[in-house]
Amino acid sequence: MDSNSVSPMPELAPIAEFDKSPPSPPNEEVPMDDLPPPPATISQAEGKKLKVQRSRSYDSEEHERGACEWCEYALVITLATILLIGVSALTIFWTFFYREGYGWADDIPEKQFNLHPTLMIAGFITFSGFSVLLYRICRCFRRIYVKLLHAIFHALAFPCIVIGFLAVLDFHNKKGINNFYSLHSWIGFVAMGLFGLQYAVGFFSFLLLLICNKGTANFRASLVPIHAAFGVLTFVLGVCACLTGLTEKALFTLGSETYASMSTEAIVINAIGMSVVAVAIVVLYTVRGTGGYRLRKVAQNPS
Amino acid sequence: MDSNSVSPMPELAPIAEFDKSPPSPPNEEVPMDDLPPPPATISQAEGKKLKVQRSRSYDSEEHERGACEWCEYALVITLATILLIGVSALTIFWTFFYREGYGWADDIPEKQFNLHPTLMIAGFITFSGFSVLLYRICRCFRRIYVKLLHAIFHALAFPCIVIGFLAVLDFHNKKGINNFYSLHSWIGFVAMGLFGLQYAVGFFSFLLLLICNKGTANFRASLVPIHAAFGVLTFVLGVCACLTGLTEKALFTLGSETYASMSTEAIVINAIGMSVVAVAIVVLYTVRGTGGYRLRKVAQNPS
Repeated sequence: MDSNSVSPMPELAPIAEFDKSPPSPPNEEVPMDDLPPPPATISQAEGKKLKVQRSRSYDSEEHERGACEWCEYALVITLATILLIGVSALTIFWTFFYREGYGWADDIPEKQFNLHPTLMIAGFITFSGFSVLLYRICRCFRRIYVKLLHAIFHALAFPCIVIGFLAVLDFHNKKGINNFYSLHSWIGFVAMGLFGLQYAVGFFSFLLLLICNKGTANFRASLVPIHAAFGVLTFVLGVCACLTGLTEKALFTLGSETYASMSTEAIVINAIGMSVVAVAIVVLYTVRGTGGYRLRKVAQNPS
Repeated sequence: MDSNSVSPMPELAPIAEFDKSPPSPPNEEVPMDDLPPPPATISQAEGKKLKVQRSRSYDSEEHERGACEWCEYALVITLATILLIGVSALTIFWTFFYREGYGWADDIPEKQFNLHPTLMIAGFITFSGFSVLLYRICRCFRRIYVKLLHAIFHALAFPCIVIGFLAVLDFHNKKGINNFYSLHSWIGFVAMGLFGLQYAVGFFSFLLLLICNKGTANFRASLVPIHAAFGVLTFVLGVCACLTGLTEKALFTLGSETYASMSTEAIVINAIGMSVVAVAIVVLYTVRGTGGYRLRKVAQNPS
């Protein structure tokens, strides 16, 4: 299968490989999947080996695999979109149907608290999830546009997380509750810290790209694997913070007995939690590190 | 850097690449990192390109990078061992110091419940964590031994998870509490289901290897990326189940007011949770998908 085809999933490369901004001069160390297959420069010994390998595969099989991978790609995009929008929609529905909606008035601080789960799920799950997935699957666009989309979605997540954090801090102060005592708050604190650091690193790297593309390419390339690994970590910590937060909320608001009796609100809260888990499954499955394995197959059999 | 060196971290390949059992005949489609560098078979055009690339790098830099990666490797192993053993040790300390130890008698069902967090953390975090890490970092051993170690650690995790599950089920029945009502139990149920499926797939694949190594190589190779991706997912779900469970336990046992006052037991429970988070960070960082990126660099510059 040609590595330059528009199919974005088949040659799924680790995120690290995405960060070479086009156009690159021909002698630069470009990723292997950006190079055309070099049949003319293959030595005799290599040629023989490829011939043996080719004799085992059939064109129809290659086509079938291509179609299968396109199906997987379409399925992932559809599932991810439904889940990422669905989890925020379900949280808004829960707030309006069971928790009296939103507000920032002194008389009903509970309405102010409601901003916390909604904005944190929007920031850490919906927007961050879209941002990670887009960077991973948009291989038909130019790299610079994908980076811009990645930045825009994280820029949308940023105010959500900040306002969501301020909402609960102010709610605690109004009600005289301690801050940062629970496991949820500790995990959330680490997740927010990592998100801030990642945002700063991404912004700095993007700025360097705009100022001096070629001169900073090596430095930026060395940042990418770390940014990618910690990006996935930040997302997982965001998921953990959401799940512990939902557990706390269910026990605080419903109480252990109503929660154990499986009231409809308990089921809705659990459904929000399981949607977050489903999003985590789709995102982690999509960003899995199979890139090297597939790329090497392409490199061994470049026909 | 030679890809056949004993350093296990430098050419970190996705887990998928590990699953080619030695010895392979020379004409088989072996992973690129199992092939010796072929300088004698390089064509003229490729030779010129490599010369251009080599002129930019210095031997001392390569040595420094190698030493740096060995340091990273040693640091990861030390940190992971401390954290993986530490999280189980801390849970056992918490149970004996604050929760009166273990038991399976009808008169004190709480002592029976105490088996649940201890065994689940041992199964889903300590043993599973060691199993995933060992498979990822043991590159100096023969593949078959690494697989055996991976299987042994999962075989240790299996009874922990089963007994831990039965302990809480029996505790609920004795106390007349509903089963499977909370978000924690739903996440735990999915995690246990995935663990069972993964165990079955791994066992089946290992059995196939023993019965017919060469004939089943392609089939087993196609299973590996899926097994690896779902293995990481199962681990993350185990982490989520542990964190939501600890949050529930803190609120059930201490109550919201004592928890909010930051009693010493609350801090110990939070510390267990944060150790689980630290384990997740180390494991996810170690299994990150940078393999393809590094391998392609080795392939382009095989000196």
